[in-house]
Amino acid sequence: MILAVKAKFISLFGAALLLLPSTLLAADPLPSWNNATAKQAIVGFVERVSRSGSPGFVPVPERIAVFDNDGTLWAEQPMYFQMFFLTNRVKALAPQHPEWKTTEPFASLLKGDMKGVAALGEKGLVEMLAATHSGMTTDEFEKSVTDWLATAKHPKTGKPFTEMAYQPMLELLAYLRAHGFKTFIVSGGGIEFMRPWTEKVYGIPPEQVVGSSGGLQYEVRDGKPVIVKLPDVVLIDDKEGKPVGIQRHIGRRPIAAFGNSDGDLQMLQWTAAGEGPRLCLYVHHTDARREWAYDRVSHIGKLDKGLDEAKARGWTVVSIKDDWNRVFAFE
Amino acid sequence: MILAVKAKFISLFGAALLLLPSTLLAADPLPSWNNATAKQAIVGFVERVSRSGSPGFVPVPERIAVFDNDGTLWAEQPMYFQMFFLTNRVKALAPQHPEWKTTEPFASLLKGDMKGVAALGEKGLVEMLAATHSGMTTDEFEKSVTDWLATAKHPKTGKPFTEMAYQPMLELLAYLRAHGFKTFIVSGGGIEFMRPWTEKVYGIPPEQVVGSSGGLQYEVRDGKPVIVKLPDVVLIDDKEGKPVGIQRHIGRRPIAAFGNSDGDLQMLQWTAAGEGPRLCLYVHHTDARREWAYDRVSHIGKLDKGLDEAKARGWTVVSIKDDWNRVFAFE
Repeated sequence: MILAVKAKFISLFGAALLLLPSTLLAADPLPSWNNATAKQAIVGFVERVSRSGSPGFVPVPERIAVFDNDGTLWAEQPMYFQMFFLTNRVKALAPQHPEWKTTEPFASLLKGDMKGVAALGEKGLVEMLAATHSGMTTDEFEKSVTDWLATAKHPKTGKPFTEMAYQPMLELLAYLRAHGFKTFIVSGGGIEFMRPWTEKVYGIPPEQVVGSSGGLQYEVRDGKPVIVKLPDVVLIDDKEGKPVGIQRHIGRRPIAAFGNSDGDLQMLQWTAAGEGPRLCLYVHHTDARREWAYDRVSHIGKLDKGLDEAKARGWTVVSIKDDWNRVFAFE
Repeated sequence: MILAVKAKFISLFGAALLLLPSTLLAADPLPSWNNATAKQAIVGFVERVSRSGSPGFVPVPERIAVFDNDGTLWAEQPMYFQMFFLTNRVKALAPQHPEWKTTEPFASLLKGDMKGVAALGEKGLVEMLAATHSGMTTDEFEKSVTDWLATAKHPKTGKPFTEMAYQPMLELLAYLRAHGFKTFIVSGGGIEFMRPWTEKVYGIPPEQVVGSSGGLQYEVRDGKPVIVKLPDVVLIDDKEGKPVGIQRHIGRRPIAAFGNSDGDLQMLQWTAAGEGPRLCLYVHHTDARREWAYDRVSHIGKLDKGLDEAKARGWTVVSIKDDWNRVFAFE
């Protein structure tokens, strides 16, 4: 009798367990996400593609997830963080380039007119990248990034830039990897600027970083092989360039894509157009108090067409204000 | 007494175990390799970098191994296998290009003069790649490769080309991965030509394939996003191009590099120039009976400078005749 009751209890308990989402069984892997639509869409998608026998099951090698970086994995205000690095380099090199005082985008940058620089857009950024990020070896460049990161602070929070990564997105990256996903960055930022720190900050190794990139040249200097960064542009990894970067570096269509701006729209479209389950997600900057609030008219991270398309196609839109109970780890 | 003897036996047995290479304890993971210098160099290197606490220990994320493809992972005689694919496409497209009859390298190819084509070298190959591998979408191109592979046969062995992979190298790839290595292809061959089959044949996913590559363009055709292959060359992944391809796609210096020709020399140099334990290995084609014998004067897979440098620097040189007891799985 006692055994029968026990068996019945276990059976009922077992059945109840099956009704619970697996995230509630273990410690919640996404604690910084409020339990609302966006989180449910993420968990639902991940469980669907990773549960063996599920009609939406996707084999591990095909679980490719791509993330924009600026404004998606870390903040991008008051300007792209790489611009702070760039500014340092332009100022350091300015004495050797007197013509920069009257040539855009350098002139605006040297005057501290960052809105003017932002108005010149991605193209201006790439131009300055070419002018200041070439001529040295890749080892030298990596060191300059690492050295800068070690001391530079964000002007608003006073924190190192790498601490401005979004805590909910760090949890999301780990959650996806725990379910067999390979996580990639696909960013308009410079590929060599990101690689020195993405593994430490995001757990994303250099070979899974796709970004805007310039020419490279192999040379032997004093008997030692080096790779020298050239000024020519090989890829502007933004807008139409994002699917191109994905094909060039990954060679397989992602099943999940995460962005925050119109610059990510083609990446989300390319991801959505594949067969089988897809997750396309926009981070919407709606929290002026804890972070920043901007979208349709912003110089940086403009989200206009993308917001319309997300609504029309039922993509997931994350409101930072409503969906994230914590934005940064240091809060 | 009996217990003491037992304990002593176990102790001696345990000590003896420590003296055996770990490959002998489990089933030999490299059964197609004769137990000679080359195999010992491979096993010694892998055990050194993967044994925790060893002075040469290398953390898993840094265990990057790069492999040339033609002549290193699969055969390359009587001509690069991609040339058989190319030949088919050139013949199919020739009626639309009457000028090819008098223009090299197409003229030689259409006349069946493959030595003439080979003499035009990597540049000729890349030119034909541009002319015949562009204008279609990446999906269409992938299908043409897959369709061709399904029926094409090697002229000498009569086997599908994918069965011409070297059995010892397949074992080596698996052995490295079992020890935490990430294995990459870095080949002069076309990146989009290799990706459709490398995962199945070598266990190397598309995102770990680096090769010669052309321009790509994102377009929306009839409301459907596609990526179109353009005729311009983005990377010739041969000689000085190999370290460039490694930096662009991997962003980290390999600790092991495997090649078979002078086209791989810079890749081996770049690998060797890093700090810590390195394994640089050349496959030397010495077996005219089971495979082919060629090196210093070959049109394809010329190994001349590389052979001298390997000897001078003590790199591992694998003699197919002496080091491999099996070349192909179908033997």
